[in-house]
Amino acid sequence: MENVVVLGAGSWGTALAIVLAENGHNTLIWSHREDQANEINTMHTNKKYLPNTVLPESLSATSDLQVAAQHGSTIVMAVPTKGIREVCGNISQYLEQQALFVHVSKGIEPDSLMRISELMEESLAAHAVSDIVVLSGPSHAEEVVLQHPTTVTAACKNLAAAEKVQDLFMSQYFRVYTNDDVVGVEIGGALKNVIALAAGMTDGLDFGDNAKAALITRGLAEITRLGVKMGGNPFTFAGLTGMGDLIVTCTSVHSRNWRAGNMLGKGMKLDQVLEEMGMVVEGVRTTKAAHQLAMKYEVSMPITSALYDVLFKDMEPKALVDSLMVRTKKREIDEMS
Amino acid sequence: MENVVVLGAGSWGTALAIVLAENGHNTLIWSHREDQANEINTMHTNKKYLPNTVLPESLSATSDLQVAAQHGSTIVMAVPTKGIREVCGNISQYLEQQALFVHVSKGIEPDSLMRISELMEESLAAHAVSDIVVLSGPSHAEEVVLQHPTTVTAACKNLAAAEKVQDLFMSQYFRVYTNDDVVGVEIGGALKNVIALAAGMTDGLDFGDNAKAALITRGLAEITRLGVKMGGNPFTFAGLTGMGDLIVTCTSVHSRNWRAGNMLGKGMKLDQVLEEMGMVVEGVRTTKAAHQLAMKYEVSMPITSALYDVLFKDMEPKALVDSLMVRTKKREIDEMS
Repeated sequence: MENVVVLGAGSWGTALAIVLAENGHNTLIWSHREDQANEINTMHTNKKYLPNTVLPESLSATSDLQVAAQHGSTIVMAVPTKGIREVCGNISQYLEQQALFVHVSKGIEPDSLMRISELMEESLAAHAVSDIVVLSGPSHAEEVVLQHPTTVTAACKNLAAAEKVQDLFMSQYFRVYTNDDVVGVEIGGALKNVIALAAGMTDGLDFGDNAKAALITRGLAEITRLGVKMGGNPFTFAGLTGMGDLIVTCTSVHSRNWRAGNMLGKGMKLDQVLEEMGMVVEGVRTTKAAHQLAMKYEVSMPITSALYDVLFKDMEPKALVDSLMVRTKKREIDEMS
Repeated sequence: MENVVVLGAGSWGTALAIVLAENGHNTLIWSHREDQANEINTMHTNKKYLPNTVLPESLSATSDLQVAAQHGSTIVMAVPTKGIREVCGNISQYLEQQALFVHVSKGIEPDSLMRISELMEESLAAHAVSDIVVLSGPSHAEEVVLQHPTTVTAACKNLAAAEKVQDLFMSQYFRVYTNDDVVGVEIGGALKNVIALAAGMTDGLDFGDNAKAALITRGLAEITRLGVKMGGNPFTFAGLTGMGDLIVTCTSVHSRNWRAGNMLGKGMKLDQVLEEMGMVVEGVRTTKAAHQLAMKYEVSMPITSALYDVLFKDMEPKALVDSLMVRTKKREIDEMS
């Protein structure tokens, strides 16, 4: 039994805290909202994010970051991407010894082009962190709390740290693989949101399943090209955190990025869409970052480029299909590799 | 402009004949039913298979195999898999010079373990055939006749033959890539039906999107393992005829194999399902063949094996999930490769 802290009480943080508590770990969840922490402690619910779920009584919550920091030496970072730097900075002061950090976020910071583990490493004090493990894969929180079979990957250059995370989370319905390819897992997880936006757009344009399957396939090929150039393992992109997560995100109407792309495909402008959604659409930021990465690493990413032009250069969404249907006759393998 | 014959007037054969006729080729479609040939010639419809489509007036039909054989030197084989041997045997006698054959079928013959191009080569007279090209990819016929963007692959060891087929079919909405990896294209196309059965089953069991994404990902990994051992190129399986076609087949309720798997997952027995469907479910035959191939090539295919046990050994469908959720802790890349 371990003492584990989960920072962030959104749907995914809460679902992971439930898995940990059910595995017998002494689990504390931190919310920046005191009323939410109180609700978890007294009602054993988190109605805003998981309306139909009863939390284990052993799962407790706090809104005091210092209490959270001192609860245990494993810390799961499940706050929204844009809050990560701040929370890392704040928690460092309370940590008396090095903690093992697990992050579950998907994104790339535009301009700095940092992956999540890189920006955590930068914003955590050196005395505060031993290893950073990324946990990723096809995993709707709503299904995990129903104990539907789910498989994910824990990745860290230090495989022993990934195996520790595997031990913490592994259960009958929640299977964890390990991988030492942090670059591959983080790039696959972030860039699937770009392709999900594009897939929503082809659906919004009513292009059909043939075009969408081609888009997803070509999308994974360009993610892989970039990721391998950045040092990732090609097998990682063919795995749960690449292809698996991409499929779930592109074929589920619950995906926020797919929904945003869908509205764009139907003719709405980006600022209207973002206003309508009323929340962060990670894929929009990531498209900008991916476009910058493609230029930096000199990798051909026709879908990402076309999407960038639609989002930021006022191109018609129909242009997206040109990225798939270019006129010159080609061999498939030359295109893939 | 070329003279092209399409053998078989089902939905896919008819859709391909329309693409050819619209590209200006002198296209003749052969049906074994005289009334269907008459309907195409006089009404310019094929209501049974494409109820809402008007065929080009330039597209004509015949029910005379000899007339079809003598129409041109490119022959597209679009009859059901189980009829291929017979039609190949019958047409050979009428062919006066070598024709280029294109096939569009997906399956493996159990026991002989032959791919479609192999059984065509065996059943066509040597004087009758120059090359056999396989045309495959994510392509619902219903979307092609609506001119929705569609991408497929034409594969032949002799790339010049594949390029000829690319030239014949390529149009503004129908994009054709070439590939010289016949084994990879045929194995990917056939075995995706096995995974589609399994995906339907997990949906029938209500296991959710997380499990289905893991199943599709792991499914492609085991298809790739087998196909590479048989001589296929790993890139082919990551392409349109592998991953692309797999995604369409596993996520569309229109897929016959998915529907059969779904009924099995809900508790029906195989013979009930086949009776209810009233038509061939290719994935059932292919599961048997794939299971035999896995043993012959000594490749681990846990999903195929579990499905084989459910279909033919009366195992509970729930056993399928054990093939994904095995208890031992593993590294992801070891599992993938």
